[in-house]
Amino acid sequence: MTTPTRDDRFSFGLWTVGYDGTDPFGGPTRAPLDVVHVVEKLAELGAYGLTFHDDDLFAFGSSDADRDRQIERLKGALAETGMVVPMVTTNLFSAPVFKDGGFTANDRDVRRYALRKVFRQLDLGAELGAKTFVMWGGREGAEYDSAKDIRQALERYREAVDLLGQYVVDKGYDIRFAIEPKPNEPRGDILLPTVGHALAFISSLERPEMVGLNPEVGHEQMAGLNFAAGIAQALYHDKLFHIDLNGQRGIKYDQDLVFGHGDLHNAFALVDLLENGGVDGGPTYNGPRHFDYKPSRTEDEVGVWESAAANMRTYLLLKERAAAFRADPEVQEALAAAKVDELAVPTLSPGETYTDFLADRSAYEDFDADASFNGKGGGFVRLQQLATEHLLGAR
Amino acid sequence: MTTPTRDDRFSFGLWTVGYDGTDPFGGPTRAPLDVVHVVEKLAELGAYGLTFHDDDLFAFGSSDADRDRQIERLKGALAETGMVVPMVTTNLFSAPVFKDGGFTANDRDVRRYALRKVFRQLDLGAELGAKTFVMWGGREGAEYDSAKDIRQALERYREAVDLLGQYVVDKGYDIRFAIEPKPNEPRGDILLPTVGHALAFISSLERPEMVGLNPEVGHEQMAGLNFAAGIAQALYHDKLFHIDLNGQRGIKYDQDLVFGHGDLHNAFALVDLLENGGVDGGPTYNGPRHFDYKPSRTEDEVGVWESAAANMRTYLLLKERAAAFRADPEVQEALAAAKVDELAVPTLSPGETYTDFLADRSAYEDFDADASFNGKGGGFVRLQQLATEHLLGAR
Amino acid sequence: MTTPTRDDRFSFGLWTVGYDGTDPFGGPTRAPLDVVHVVEKLAELGAYGLTFHDDDLFAFGSSDADRDRQIERLKGALAETGMVVPMVTTNLFSAPVFKDGGFTANDRDVRRYALRKVFRQLDLGAELGAKTFVMWGGREGAEYDSAKDIRQALERYREAVDLLGQYVVDKGYDIRFAIEPKPNEPRGDILLPTVGHALAFISSLERPEMVGLNPEVGHEQMAGLNFAAGIAQALYHDKLFHIDLNGQRGIKYDQDLVFGHGDLHNAFALVDLLENGGVDGGPTYNGPRHFDYKPSRTEDEVGVWESAAANMRTYLLLKERAAAFRADPEVQEALAAAKVDELAVPTLSPGETYTDFLADRSAYEDFDADASFNGKGGGFVRLQQLATEHLLGAR
Amino acid sequence: MTTPTRDDRFSFGLWTVGYDGTDPFGGPTRAPLDVVHVVEKLAELGAYGLTFHDDDLFAFGSSDADRDRQIERLKGALAETGMVVPMVTTNLFSAPVFKDGGFTANDRDVRRYALRKVFRQLDLGAELGAKTFVMWGGREGAEYDSAKDIRQALERYREAVDLLGQYVVDKGYDIRFAIEPKPNEPRGDILLPTVGHALAFISSLERPEMVGLNPEVGHEQMAGLNFAAGIAQALYHDKLFHIDLNGQRGIKYDQDLVFGHGDLHNAFALVDLLENGGVDGGPTYNGPRHFDYKPSRTEDEVGVWESAAANMRTYLLLKERAAAFRADPEVQEALAAAKVDELAVPTLSPGETYTDFLADRSAYEDFDADASFNGKGGGFVRLQQLATEHLLGAR
Repeated sequence: MTTPTRDDRFSFGLWTVGYDGTDPFGGPTRAPLDVVHVVEKLAELGAYGLTFHDDDLFAFGSSDADRDRQIERLKGALAETGMVVPMVTTNLFSAPVFKDGGFTANDRDVRRYALRKVFRQLDLGAELGAKTFVMWGGREGAEYDSAKDIRQALERYREAVDLLGQYVVDKGYDIRFAIEPKPNEPRGDILLPTVGHALAFISSLERPEMVGLNPEVGHEQMAGLNFAAGIAQALYHDKLFHIDLNGQRGIKYDQDLVFGHGDLHNAFALVDLLENGGVDGGPTYNGPRHFDYKPSRTEDEVGVWESAAANMRTYLLLKERAAAFRADPEVQEALAAAKVDELAVPTLSPGETYTDFLADRSAYEDFDADASFNGKGGGFVRLQQLATEHLLGAR
Repeated sequence: MTTPTRDDRFSFGLWTVGYDGTDPFGGPTRAPLDVVHVVEKLAELGAYGLTFHDDDLFAFGSSDADRDRQIERLKGALAETGMVVPMVTTNLFSAPVFKDGGFTANDRDVRRYALRKVFRQLDLGAELGAKTFVMWGGREGAEYDSAKDIRQALERYREAVDLLGQYVVDKGYDIRFAIEPKPNEPRGDILLPTVGHALAFISSLERPEMVGLNPEVGHEQMAGLNFAAGIAQALYHDKLFHIDLNGQRGIKYDQDLVFGHGDLHNAFALVDLLENGGVDGGPTYNGPRHFDYKPSRTEDEVGVWESAAANMRTYLLLKERAAAFRADPEVQEALAAAKVDELAVPTLSPGETYTDFLADRSAYEDFDADASFNGKGGGFVRLQQLATEHLLGAR
Repeated sequence: MTTPTRDDRFSFGLWTVGYDGTDPFGGPTRAPLDVVHVVEKLAELGAYGLTFHDDDLFAFGSSDADRDRQIERLKGALAETGMVVPMVTTNLFSAPVFKDGGFTANDRDVRRYALRKVFRQLDLGAELGAKTFVMWGGREGAEYDSAKDIRQALERYREAVDLLGQYVVDKGYDIRFAIEPKPNEPRGDILLPTVGHALAFISSLERPEMVGLNPEVGHEQMAGLNFAAGIAQALYHDKLFHIDLNGQRGIKYDQDLVFGHGDLHNAFALVDLLENGGVDGGPTYNGPRHFDYKPSRTEDEVGVWESAAANMRTYLLLKERAAAFRADPEVQEALAAAKVDELAVPTLSPGETYTDFLADRSAYEDFDADASFNGKGGGFVRLQQLATEHLLGAR
Repeated sequence: MTTPTRDDRFSFGLWTVGYDGTDPFGGPTRAPLDVVHVVEKLAELGAYGLTFHDDDLFAFGSSDADRDRQIERLKGALAETGMVVPMVTTNLFSAPVFKDGGFTANDRDVRRYALRKVFRQLDLGAELGAKTFVMWGGREGAEYDSAKDIRQALERYREAVDLLGQYVVDKGYDIRFAIEPKPNEPRGDILLPTVGHALAFISSLERPEMVGLNPEVGHEQMAGLNFAAGIAQALYHDKLFHIDLNGQRGIKYDQDLVFGHGDLHNAFALVDLLENGGVDGGPTYNGPRHFDYKPSRTEDEVGVWESAAANMRTYLLLKERAAAFRADPEVQEALAAAKVDELAVPTLSPGETYTDFLADRSAYEDFDADASFNGKGGGFVRLQQLATEHLLGAR
């Protein structure tokens, strides 16, 4: 049960296992990996999908011939292995031209260039059967407050997404967009810094139904936010279109560790929510379990594949632990004692108006608020200890 | 120009100057301040408004007679001084009964009690002429992931706000609601942790037009977020209904310092946005400049009023600095060089369709992306240095 | 093996289980616990020790008679249960007089008063057989840079510790001092903010051998620091005199959660270091395993004791996991592959001088630095995955 | 007074203005700058010194001929301009061979190679007249707790520094070492993460007098620590051997902004401490004011030199502001009222023994601790407001 299969819908970015080790203080420690090799290895390890930025597959500025050759090589590998491409995205952050952003660069010519690059990758995504088009606006931001008019930046972002949405509709592509928030790095502050900000932005779009989120574990944790809680709000708004799983150890630079090598309690809560949070305890999300991580710069290719496998194995272990947690009668009793389910009962009774409610003396005038002092314990620490013991495999 | 007048619309919470110094490691260092004294002193210092939680004015569990007496005393002081009450709010966080929250407590009886407490304060706010009703859900959250069903919590939050909205409409009150986000403290994680999460939640309400935000400087900065950028997004969605000004020194416990005693660059950018970011360089926000700060626990009453005055004086100094920044021809030239205004120009030309755009070879095929290498500098550091020098009063 | 016994040397602060729930936004949710009851309950749960501040046992400003009565009641409970008092400490942070600190208050009279309060508690500690006297200088700090001369504050801190050291020596007390660092809260910035700063300060003392550290999990994590690594450096300097175990979820207010309810990976590494990091895989630390946590404010007394038990049980579970990790042949092989032990081999050979070394062409001129590109992988991710699987009880 | 001269002792790293814009998400945006050009431009702007890592001047793996040529070119430029090289350092972090560190790599051969690289740069530093040799151990750390034995790492670090110290003594070089702490990035956790940890380590060395610190503004602020307070502790231990000035906006990735473009209040406090904190209000530090910053990736070469100039101009503006602050009679009165200087008075009187002190009833038994409730205000907020107004140039 902890050996991954295609039914688990695990996918990886080409740039993840393909990360060459460059960081702000050092150059590459690994040679580039060929896309065909990557597809074969991931298939062998039990993944079902590969995702990529345009520049991952064919270098920025490639000739059409080079681009086409790489696309054909990828298609061949997919056909051979049965792997799919569930998502694609565009690189609007690496080339110097995007140093001030793509959709929201102050320079209009850059915005036009960026948008054209996205159109091109959108066509390729459709051609390859991708259902999700991710937009991570890593360079859409600023270091200095007076250098960027945030309201105009949002307006330009909206213009871009609305235009792309119209195009997808007109073309009849079966594609939805997923915005990936991040608070900072590589810009001092990035536009749409959290799940919340991106959700709010989506509600201002022309076709909000076509646009959802691609939240990443580490990105929310870089703002000290509870990732599982953020995913719950995304689900509440029906906007969990895709997900980026990885590990982060607190508020610092973007670590992109293996899933589960960061905050383990929250990883457990996340898997529990994804797998058991739905109707009758079923899943809440059926899309790819996508790993957006980096094999540590210290590793050679052996470590690349070990780390890829570790992501999947840890996910499946946590899925086992979460299932056992939910099935444990003591946990069920503790959840009931903590009234966790009572929160699903509306605060007003069926048919109760505010007039009725304001007349209900039991609700206020006769309510014993003092009983909560030295009594009416939540029972929440007990629940957390039960979760901890299940996580540790100790129950 | 740095002496506050009523036209500056400065307001203070009764709980701010009234803070007694209690913190997690020590009890009170100051005696309670009487509301009449507070109103008189604030009026004398140049403020125009007082705001309060119900429990600030009359202790939790007060008899009706005690409550009425305090209300009358407040009314008297307002009449005498000409001060107003632009905003009120309910305390759903101090009493033991709210230890697991108010609107989203797992215990339904607590939720009903909380809601009734809010109705009562809403009536009082209307009676006093308050135009804004703030909701800070400080206890709406959890320490442990399995102890709170976030989606049901959002559902109960929505139920509460929708019901209150219906009531305000039916009663004909001239009141709007303003949600105040905070990431954590006093709960491990709080529901609607940032400006973005609250904006997203509002879009799911029955009457989104009645509900906006009351963002607080320190609360966003506790998540490492850029406050001025968050306010810009709130303005973008027309949701800046009220604002809480104070100071915070980075990601740590909620400090509630004097405005300007925290991140000074961002305070400058904020005042510039509020005062000069609107049409023709006018203000973007006309509501109260509300200080939600705490006089440091080390101070006695002398320090309380000095700190209150410091908030207003620093705001006005920053307003002067921001005006000078905008008026400086060198700044204007630098903004133009950095193409800050070019971001207001739509990326597509008037009437241009995506078909036209995709056919424009100058936008992509013939565009010289390489010119951004070693050229086309943003000029952003220069802008920041100009801002720094204006902030330092050095230009 | 996961049932605590006295040999495990688990101790608790009287203020921990006795925490009444007060926080910055709410008053008590629980009644005070009597010390005799606490000693009995902790003994019953398997703890061996109780620790306390003076003000925990007898309220600040108690008469001598009240103080004596409480001391006698404590002694009775200890005698009855066999519990010990391995550590005591002084409260120099709760009363208004300490609002600017104790040893380093700007006001000299306050410093004298604080010092006298410490002398009194030191005598009591000696009387009760405590071997460690902890100094947490929670109010030794400032919110504003110009309000505190840091160098003079360190000088006064040194004066105080040197004087107390002389007194202990002269009295023949079998007591050592342990400084507890914390970066902030309740002060904006606290003196000696981390394990490192406190270690450095100790080296400047008159009797450095008498003074060590009492590091707390959450305090270092509030600065984003790796706690296990900090403990390793404390051990390196022979300064781990006492330890405060609890849980913290990242950089935010001081949470004081149950041990293991925070960063579980680091808790595992810590227990592994404490229990298995010594000579021949034995322990590195033999003092009390002291829990300095707070039962969540949501809980009633049932939750208080459940949370106390949870601390001990999680520690013992992690001890089991760490032992299994060290015993696993695959882990041993992976550690060898990662050359973890090779770090214990001096970089220079026995007897090698720098002249020899500079003449060794194999070390530099003929060394193949390029072999580290695309080869010589660290094998570190594999190690982390093995640790993760042991932590999850999956091996 | 805000035009830099050589007497201001401003220096820059060759890697600072020479930063090519590479970051984790993008390649270079600027061409390399030639060292001769850099020396000329810095001299023209008013700097007095250039510093460099070996690999900045001659690429890693250069032939001896290439290395010599670059050294000669640098010497020529220095001679021509009168610039000096006050500090040099070694790059032990960029090349793949250092992916697990230099002095503390698990692989002993790497450690030997690293040490040899340092010896070579040390000879060059001595040849060029450098007085300080900085050691930033950016790769000395780990991502995973079981992958690095911290105590052995410290032991190897000590071995390396002791050996280098012996060499410097034997050679008669007029050079001191300065360790530069950093909490994380590029490693998950770095050894000697803060000023405090490095100070503690130094006290364990064979020749502690030869080794001090090179603290960097942003590095301490990445741990949420107060930089000026850290510098004060470094001064307290006589260990401020060198300093790295730059700007950082809170706990996030290492931003290396221009000095003053981050936390302005703390920059003011720092300059005040450096320039006015010494005997009779003189400087506490006479070494180079060294800028270790990065011109933002968005800029071209014009922005590089503008940003270099901005560092110096902001330092000099803050120096002016700090001098005015100290000279303001109202500030002096406020400092006295806040008893800031009283902290310099020993807590015990001259000749007072602890026996005398314990017998002084005025110190404890008769002391009125209650007077601090509602009285004896610190006056600290007023001080901070005076500092703020001086910072804003408003007094």
